Amino acid sequence: MTTEVVRLAHGGGGRLQAGLLDEVILPALGARACGAPDAAVLDAPGGRLALTTDSFVVRPLFFPGGDIGRLAVHGTVNDLAMAGARPLWLTLGLILEEGLPLEDLRRVLASVSAAAEECGVQVVAGDTKVVEAGHGDGVYINTSGAGVVPDGVGIEPTAIRPGDVLLASGDLGRHGVAILAARENLGLEPPVPSDSASVAAAVAALLDAGVAVHALRDPTRGGAVAALQELADASGCRLVLEDEAIPVREDVRGACEILGLDPLHSACEGRFLAAVPADHAEQALAVLQSVPVTRDAVAIGRAVAGDPAVIRRLATGVERRLVLPAGEQLPRIC
Amino acid sequence: MTTEVVRLAHGGGGRLQAGLLDEVILPALGARACGAPDAAVLDAPGGRLALTTDSFVVRPLFFPGGDIGRLAVHGTVNDLAMAGARPLWLTLGLILEEGLPLEDLRRVLASVSAAAEECGVQVVAGDTKVVEAGHGDGVYINTSGAGVVPDGVGIEPTAIRPGDVLLASGDLGRHGVAILAARENLGLEPPVPSDSASVAAAVAALLDAGVAVHALRDPTRGGAVAALQELADASGCRLVLEDEAIPVREDVRGACEILGLDPLHSACEGRFLAAVPADHAEQALAVLQSVPVTRDAVAIGRAVAGDPAVIRRLATGVERRLVLPAGEQLPRIC
Repeated sequence: MTTEVVRLAHGGGGRLQAGLLDEVILPALGARACGAPDAAVLDAPGGRLALTTDSFVVRPLFFPGGDIGRLAVHGTVNDLAMAGARPLWLTLGLILEEGLPLEDLRRVLASVSAAAEECGVQVVAGDTKVVEAGHGDGVYINTSGAGVVPDGVGIEPTAIRPGDVLLASGDLGRHGVAILAARENLGLEPPVPSDSASVAAAVAALLDAGVAVHALRDPTRGGAVAALQELADASGCRLVLEDEAIPVREDVRGACEILGLDPLHSACEGRFLAAVPADHAEQALAVLQSVPVTRDAVAIGRAVAGDPAVIRRLATGVERRLVLPAGEQLPRIC
Repeated sequence: MTTEVVRLAHGGGGRLQAGLLDEVILPALGARACGAPDAAVLDAPGGRLALTTDSFVVRPLFFPGGDIGRLAVHGTVNDLAMAGARPLWLTLGLILEEGLPLEDLRRVLASVSAAAEECGVQVVAGDTKVVEAGHGDGVYINTSGAGVVPDGVGIEPTAIRPGDVLLASGDLGRHGVAILAARENLGLEPPVPSDSASVAAAVAALLDAGVAVHALRDPTRGGAVAALQELADASGCRLVLEDEAIPVREDVRGACEILGLDPLHSACEGRFLAAVPADHAEQALAVLQSVPVTRDAVAIGRAVAGDPAVIRRLATGVERRLVLPAGEQLPRIC
């Protein structure tokens, strides 16, 4: 590999592509990648299969608290966990822009490898394409994932019932603010770190403890409001949040004021919202608080009978309906 | 949907994104898509699981014989088939460029849907991202796929033995020429159509007939030479092709002469190469010739003991080694 940037020829199926694969990509992914040429063949344990896909186009590629590689692993692992699945395997699709420094590619791949290791998942298949300069933005990553849903687990937003307690697994809105602050050079000191993390272990702990989880959703694009509105629509329940119970870090709240943004519209990448029966809420919180990534889990509200809306109830008792933004606010945060 | 092009807000997680999904993407995919929010949960039949991923960045998006949507389905279905798997499920990751006409998106999605229907696979999960104009090229698609490998099937390039017969499932090199001719305005009349197609039914027919298939490989980027070199390297066998037996259409041969390209370096997207024991070759060809997509299947050579090289033997008896191009020739053909 004499060149130190990605060239178009690296995607042409010839010797340079083979070199990129053998000298850069596979070594970076290490023992967790296996080199099946067409498709990986895997021994699946029993249970239903969960499949998901996510592409990542975040800008900048590297940001406080993470980078596109960690994000791609966490995002897909979390999507599997939200279905109650145990994440097992990832595929990795890279779209590289001509001119990308190979050093950046190596850093991203090292992050993919480290995050996969931490999450206990294996990268089993991959693909690399190269596009001309001006038709990409460094690296776009698709991670698709497969996992197994244990027998007896049936997590569905339709299962939410009036009376269910809504839990937040930690502080909300941080990832979106971290990206925006990095991109807009807000100069926050210290910088707000992304919350990018896997929540799969926390979900597994809940299920292992026998908590009757009705629904799970990770508040990514669109933030907590978008996630909750989907749960409200699916279940036909009104979801009422207690304003003073919503966990938002002070630095995130401050940055949101500067940006004119509601933290509940800002994405997380290492958090989830859960609906559990009221008589399981205390146990659920105890379980979550015993797992590092969800140690700050709290109850934030309840599902009640009514129209499928998301409501913020202020300390004064005033209720405000939270609505989905049109979507212009936060492009390319994941 | 008042706008008729993709806007950044279509990727923001808000109302516009929900509209794109509900009004354009899901209707286009029709009954073969199911709307799992995070991950699809599937009842997997018994057998080993095959997983694969492929991103598609072909330019132009629409070309004689296909488009990026059909290609994305066929490419991934074929990767599964090459592992001996029965393709079952696809995931669909879209990276849209701001400004893409929605009409183009609808056409691509209609192709995805039609191709999935033809192949008997279901699109079970999806994701859509939007990047700014000048950071994409209309549509990039990732299709990841899952399938099941029947018990007893063990297709591995390492299984090739000296004496095995090499089969080509049809004419070679057509897709690469179709794309290049479309892009370079070669003005071939009639235009060379891509061979984009699923070969899964043909592979299933081979396996169902009890043919002891040793190895399968689809000659995509890098063409037949790249695919055969991988088989040679994996098996340690010398692969000798009989020049006059190699099936190349006249129009493809003519275009390759204009382009200064060896058809064996040009990609196919609906063909495969197979290695079978000599005493199974006749049956294998009969089976393939009974399936429409592989009706022109022929034997093109043999594996012999020797160094792992790919050899073209001319009618004169002269042998020439075929080597992988560096890779500059054919960017973004898939």
